[in-house]
Amino acid sequence: MISSVKEAMERHINQDQIITVYGWIRSLRKMKNVTFALINDGTTGKNMQAVLKPCQGEGNNCKIRLSTGCSVKLTGLYRTIQGGSREKQEYELHVDNLQICGYADPSSYPLQKKHHDLEYLREKAHLRLRTESMSKLLSKDYIQTHPPVLTSSDCEGSGEIFKVESLNGSNSFFKKNTYLTVSAQLHLEALSHSLSKVWSLSPTFRAEKSRTSRHLAEFYMLEAETSFINDIEDLMSIVEQMVHDLVNNLKNSSIGNEIISDNYRTNKKDQVKLEDRWDFFLKKHWTRITYSEAIEALKNSSVHFKFLPKYGHDLQAEHEKWLTEKYTGSPLFIINYPKELKPFYMRLNNDSLKHEDRDTVSCFDLIIPQIGELAGGSLREERIDILKQSISAHKAHLSNLSWYIDIRRWGTAKHGGFGLGFDRFIAYLTGIKNVKDVVAFPRWHRHCNF
Amino acid sequence: MISSVKEAMERHINQDQIITVYGWIRSLRKMKNVTFALINDGTTGKNMQAVLKPCQGEGNNCKIRLSTGCSVKLTGLYRTIQGGSREKQEYELHVDNLQICGYADPSSYPLQKKHHDLEYLREKAHLRLRTESMSKLLSKDYIQTHPPVLTSSDCEGSGEIFKVESLNGSNSFFKKNTYLTVSAQLHLEALSHSLSKVWSLSPTFRAEKSRTSRHLAEFYMLEAETSFINDIEDLMSIVEQMVHDLVNNLKNSSIGNEIISDNYRTNKKDQVKLEDRWDFFLKKHWTRITYSEAIEALKNSSVHFKFLPKYGHDLQAEHEKWLTEKYTGSPLFIINYPKELKPFYMRLNNDSLKHEDRDTVSCFDLIIPQIGELAGGSLREERIDILKQSISAHKAHLSNLSWYIDIRRWGTAKHGGFGLGFDRFIAYLTGIKNVKDVVAFPRWHRHCNF
Repeated sequence: MISSVKEAMERHINQDQIITVYGWIRSLRKMKNVTFALINDGTTGKNMQAVLKPCQGEGNNCKIRLSTGCSVKLTGLYRTIQGGSREKQEYELHVDNLQICGYADPSSYPLQKKHHDLEYLREKAHLRLRTESMSKLLSKDYIQTHPPVLTSSDCEGSGEIFKVESLNGSNSFFKKNTYLTVSAQLHLEALSHSLSKVWSLSPTFRAEKSRTSRHLAEFYMLEAETSFINDIEDLMSIVEQMVHDLVNNLKNSSIGNEIISDNYRTNKKDQVKLEDRWDFFLKKHWTRITYSEAIEALKNSSVHFKFLPKYGHDLQAEHEKWLTEKYTGSPLFIINYPKELKPFYMRLNNDSLKHEDRDTVSCFDLIIPQIGELAGGSLREERIDILKQSISAHKAHLSNLSWYIDIRRWGTAKHGGFGLGFDRFIAYLTGIKNVKDVVAFPRWHRHCNF
Repeated sequence: MISSVKEAMERHINQDQIITVYGWIRSLRKMKNVTFALINDGTTGKNMQAVLKPCQGEGNNCKIRLSTGCSVKLTGLYRTIQGGSREKQEYELHVDNLQICGYADPSSYPLQKKHHDLEYLREKAHLRLRTESMSKLLSKDYIQTHPPVLTSSDCEGSGEIFKVESLNGSNSFFKKNTYLTVSAQLHLEALSHSLSKVWSLSPTFRAEKSRTSRHLAEFYMLEAETSFINDIEDLMSIVEQMVHDLVNNLKNSSIGNEIISDNYRTNKKDQVKLEDRWDFFLKKHWTRITYSEAIEALKNSSVHFKFLPKYGHDLQAEHEKWLTEKYTGSPLFIINYPKELKPFYMRLNNDSLKHEDRDTVSCFDLIIPQIGELAGGSLREERIDILKQSISAHKAHLSNLSWYIDIRRWGTAKHGGFGLGFDRFIAYLTGIKNVKDVVAFPRWHRHCNF
């Protein structure tokens, strides 16, 4: 049974139980016949005590050394501490199997001492999240976080970003180029390496000149990032479950009823049946196909597309529309795109069992009618060398991303996440045709009044 | 009894009752012997039916005409509709006393028709909030809203703001100068003229070069705005109650206990007794004095201040410190500052009974030890002519504020609100000395790494 540290520590069961826990080593006390480790995964301020055999998990001759900051997977018997007090039973994990997910070389990992100066830690803001005091400040379970609006990196590499400068400053206020965030993802990855599961609903910005009914220059993105996730299938299941719950709650709420009656009243001519739209999420079997399957299906269809579908080229709106509306008739996950079509941070499938997947990345686009892409997600490249190659190949500026690479340098964990355009989804669910009409003060190309 | 529309409509009491309701007229049906008005205050999607006598509240010879969009105060008997069905009892308000708070001249007020084009309404984003469909999209009671980060106005007039431009754009992306918001207040005022009571917890930005332990370039501000509030005393009571509840909840929570034990562990040398800090809010009698009383007290003190206290000059940090720590020894509201010391939007006390107050504005600063100003608030100038004069006197650009003036043009209401620097307050309550250490990725002068 996989358990969070919080679950294990709060759900003290009468009989002892075998559990598996993921987390980071907070401290390590090596004795002659036994090693004690304190494990934390961010779900609680408390640490779990783990009891290891000497050199357990450290390979031949202890060449790989366990140390503070390593990310680990531990399986063993969770049982009461022998000889502990009767009044307050305490538990510890007797580890049978230990796997290091991400090593944290003690000769370089900056968080060695129990207490560092706050000034020192501030310079390591991407790592200090993993300290006890910082992670306690944050909250529990899937934890809401508030990533910054101002950033020094363009995470999507699209160049369609806004630059920020002090009005009165002839010199640069921040010493380096500073932009409005296009996605909280990079910062959420740092947070997920302390708290395991994090989410945010934050303003994001795109300097796109599109003036369609679907585009805003300032919009809200719902983003989540999960550590210790191995399979893109699990990530898609999280998204499917979340959207399902959201729509189901809406359908069964009094607000849902109001929205439906308002919709009938205002959209008299051009009726959208909202109940059908909602049931499309709730009652259809969601489909998952690969990008190459999608290309094949498009080629084999008898439809005359304006853009010829071709492997290695982006799917066009007309392609996505046909796939979700005609081919599967369901919400559709398309996975494993060629790496050239996607941003630098997505995990390369080079270890896939299928040969044809090896130049693809482990990602998905979630496609639905009308909107097209509702959400996008991926596993993130957790292997430092492959990440660096990918950054070079994508021409992203390596220097601004050194902190992001650091996340993999010490205690890396397989992880993944997704983003969902929130305003667009609200507009779709409420039958409001233009996303500008679900935002109080919408901003788009040539429009920032008020 | 003052009641919101929601309270009145949901709390159907058995016996009929006299109530007072504030709100805006959504529609009006004038018949020969009676006028029916539908009233909404944003607390519910439903409208309250009010029954008026012909020309009621319209002054001599009906010169002032009631119309859609007027803000009104209504007092009367809330009772069942006579002749209504037995199964579903419906209620209406039989109005004895009607006062127009803000007139909405039907010859100019842009929201006349029942249904306007969405495109038309989008150009009136500051007023469309008052339409039925927009206010229903938003939620209930003190309503959380998400005001924009991008804005075309510098509401504090300080000039310490960030400018935003497209990275690739040689021309202006938004056609006019666009900034990062320094406060959500102006937009919350527009929202409060549809929903009565609104709040937000949003990122705000200041291009201040201060590098103290209290300053960030990006920080969260907790702001609230309330319509139909007449007295700065009521606004201070809201703030006092809110801070009291917040600290009390913290003190009685398990997180509160953890914070205290963490504080003892980490602040060993330089001990701050957090319980005392919290009790300062909970157990002291909060004090309210005027700015001129504060100046007198400072002058009469035997303390040697670096800056001589003088009427018409800003209170310095040393003055505020002495006032809250020595003079009153309590959380301290200082009210009624000279208008020259405060921004353009604060309400002039020119109708005050006390002659000496007439050149002051109806505002407060909430002062506490260590931090200085914890929160600031004011009544907002709801009288259009005085507002225009104040804008001129403060040299704010009138052209960018025409939408803001519009809020007063139709259906104005006495209103007020406040802002509280959230990160700073969290740092204070948790004993963390530098505000940069309560924010995951802090940004300040010359620092926007990550």
